[in-house]
Amino acid sequence: MNQRALLAEFVGTAALLAGVVGSGIMAERLSPSDVGLQLLQNAIATAAVLVALILALQKASGAHFNPAVTLAARLSNELSTRAALGYIAAQFIGAVLGVSLANLMFELPAVELSTKVRSGPHLLLAEFLATLGLVGVIQGVVRSGRAHLAAYAVGAYIAGAYYFTSSTSFANPAVTVARALTDTFAGIAPSNVPAFIAAQLVGAAAAVPLLRRIYPCDEG
Amino acid sequence: MNQRALLAEFVGTAALLAGVVGSGIMAERLSPSDVGLQLLQNAIATAAVLVALILALQKASGAHFNPAVTLAARLSNELSTRAALGYIAAQFIGAVLGVSLANLMFELPAVELSTKVRSGPHLLLAEFLATLGLVGVIQGVVRSGRAHLAAYAVGAYIAGAYYFTSSTSFANPAVTVARALTDTFAGIAPSNVPAFIAAQLVGAAAAVPLLRRIYPCDEG
Amino acid sequence: MNQRALLAEFVGTAALLAGVVGSGIMAERLSPSDVGLQLLQNAIATAAVLVALILALQKASGAHFNPAVTLAARLSNELSTRAALGYIAAQFIGAVLGVSLANLMFELPAVELSTKVRSGPHLLLAEFLATLGLVGVIQGVVRSGRAHLAAYAVGAYIAGAYYFTSSTSFANPAVTVARALTDTFAGIAPSNVPAFIAAQLVGAAAAVPLLRRIYPCDEG
Amino acid sequence: MNQRALLAEFVGTAALLAGVVGSGIMAERLSPSDVGLQLLQNAIATAAVLVALILALQKASGAHFNPAVTLAARLSNELSTRAALGYIAAQFIGAVLGVSLANLMFELPAVELSTKVRSGPHLLLAEFLATLGLVGVIQGVVRSGRAHLAAYAVGAYIAGAYYFTSSTSFANPAVTVARALTDTFAGIAPSNVPAFIAAQLVGAAAAVPLLRRIYPCDEG
Repeated sequence: MNQRALLAEFVGTAALLAGVVGSGIMAERLSPSDVGLQLLQNAIATAAVLVALILALQKASGAHFNPAVTLAARLSNELSTRAALGYIAAQFIGAVLGVSLANLMFELPAVELSTKVRSGPHLLLAEFLATLGLVGVIQGVVRSGRAHLAAYAVGAYIAGAYYFTSSTSFANPAVTVARALTDTFAGIAPSNVPAFIAAQLVGAAAAVPLLRRIYPCDEG
Repeated sequence: MNQRALLAEFVGTAALLAGVVGSGIMAERLSPSDVGLQLLQNAIATAAVLVALILALQKASGAHFNPAVTLAARLSNELSTRAALGYIAAQFIGAVLGVSLANLMFELPAVELSTKVRSGPHLLLAEFLATLGLVGVIQGVVRSGRAHLAAYAVGAYIAGAYYFTSSTSFANPAVTVARALTDTFAGIAPSNVPAFIAAQLVGAAAAVPLLRRIYPCDEG
Repeated sequence: MNQRALLAEFVGTAALLAGVVGSGIMAERLSPSDVGLQLLQNAIATAAVLVALILALQKASGAHFNPAVTLAARLSNELSTRAALGYIAAQFIGAVLGVSLANLMFELPAVELSTKVRSGPHLLLAEFLATLGLVGVIQGVVRSGRAHLAAYAVGAYIAGAYYFTSSTSFANPAVTVARALTDTFAGIAPSNVPAFIAAQLVGAAAAVPLLRRIYPCDEG
Repeated sequence: MNQRALLAEFVGTAALLAGVVGSGIMAERLSPSDVGLQLLQNAIATAAVLVALILALQKASGAHFNPAVTLAARLSNELSTRAALGYIAAQFIGAVLGVSLANLMFELPAVELSTKVRSGPHLLLAEFLATLGLVGVIQGVVRSGRAHLAAYAVGAYIAGAYYFTSSTSFANPAVTVARALTDTFAGIAPSNVPAFIAAQLVGAAAAVPLLRRIYPCDEG
């Protein structure tokens, strides 16, 4: 197994979660009176962190930082099952570390269960579409020979998807689990996690055949 | 006819509409007290979605997602009349799907006629200039051999045009029709749609000879 | 004289002014209670329009849209005195057209003298530094062989300079004159225009020898 | 010693500080009622200035503008100890000039000691992580052959890090010292400076072996 790829996935996912959760806490504290302004700050910060991380780590691991992306890459035969499982383990461990660091930077307990309820079929439709879109964008740039532009495509997509989906686009099982461990802006109650992850995995799996029809020949 | 190009136009226009309408609903709900803040969130999200979609789908279809852009491409002999008609049909069908998905993600009826009146000659001047500018920017990058930068040029243009035009720059007939089907932030009353589309088509047609004078030789 | 370059400078400067002034009016109307939020919207829209215009028109004229930039290009022997005078004339005419279109799009008189006083030595220091920085950034990318990245460098610089200078960084004599012709957010009282322009020209002239020391060999 | 590299570091760090401090003053004055909106304006302006400066000056000096980045470059044998010391001297002198210019542009005394207390172990953890991340991102792009994308990676990282760290990510010893010389939004009480710098240097030093493990072969 490629140790440096796993290290890159671990470090990158930790930094992503620190970015998502930390910026959520900061925005919530600084702009208590306008939730839209909170989400704007959270969206811009998250997208910016993603651009930086993908530019810096893509050459080591592909910069998945997301089990749904790794699943789609596996279904597209971009990596072996064994490598995919290693990636996913590194992502989950990194995500938990990242959320803990965010909590500690803001003087909160390292881990705290979220009490923010996020339920309802419309949110699951949103997670399905958010992940379909995210994986679709990634597969689109990869299959059309533009993998080197993935940082901009993914950063831009997430900035938009935080807004156009009613769920604010988690679109990432490792992010979803880790966000259950902070009782702040970005949190999600643990009981809502399984349905979110299921919707995400279905979305990711649906994106693969769709992009294969749009780009029958992988030009990556 | 190129099936994968039509699929890309269909999927891309659906995602664009989900982005425009969904982010408008989100912004309106989260920031009810400041319309400028609503438009800022809507503009950033829309531009970001455009960047992602154009990067991902441009190699399949050119990433028009807009009948006015397809009209200009036809006038510039970039595609046949038959292909242009296919593109436009795919765009309209995709746009209607996209607005419906946005409505559903936010627990609204899939289709609802807008009651937001947008009338007056100043708005038609704005739509004329907005579409002239959009098509001008696209033809400018294409004719000067920079088509690979279209995602950034179009995303940036739309972020700006949401603000500098009094109509908030629809600049797209498929988007205009679909936005009549949501009674939210991004809506437009059906009776105002025909004049908007007319102004857009005149703007698109005007851009073609202008850019031909600026770039007499197509270096694309 | 190169007619298409002059046309590009005319069209580009008109669009830039429509962008600056139109987005200022929109922001002022939509967010009346927070001037910072107005400037944020104005800065993002202006920077975005600049990115789009430079990407689309740079291959035709270099995309100056600014007499101070043309002056610096002349001092660097990038174009003849005759061509520079043509550029500057096209920029001023385009700027006046652009501000008029912005006013009309928002149902205001096409031309109206501004009553917004902008005076004081600190603002002239700001305009000197703003233009020194703008021309320095342009000459920096050009002389180091990165002229193709000018759109991103200039757009980013202006987004920042709107904020870090107390004058909100006009940094452009054609923009300054035209902004005297709108009595809105972006306006400047005509009596303050000459001092602004003088500070801008000194800043532009100062940037040329500085960048020549940093990049003695023009690698562009 | 390379005089033009030192000039680039001096000018670039001065401009960076003018950007950070000036935009902080502007945001604080224009949006007095929402601290989140102040930070959003400050973050966007700072990131934008960084993108412009790195694009313009990277070919002359590498565009460090930061003693922590120069330390990491020295540890990676990218430059000699003698050159590193010259860089660091130029950065500190430039930083002090930059903060003075920002103060003067806003009609404040050129230099004024800050009274803003920034203390506590959580802020030092934040500075450690912020600098670890910044140097990690830079070393990541450099070691993977993407140094030409450093402007986008660093600008994006800083936009995010202003939000996800509780300290708002100073991550730069020259910036930290200079920000003690303004009693405005971006200030830091002089007594808090040494601990911030210590945390930053430890973070920078920690990033070097981490990135060496992820990218064992420097492909830059």
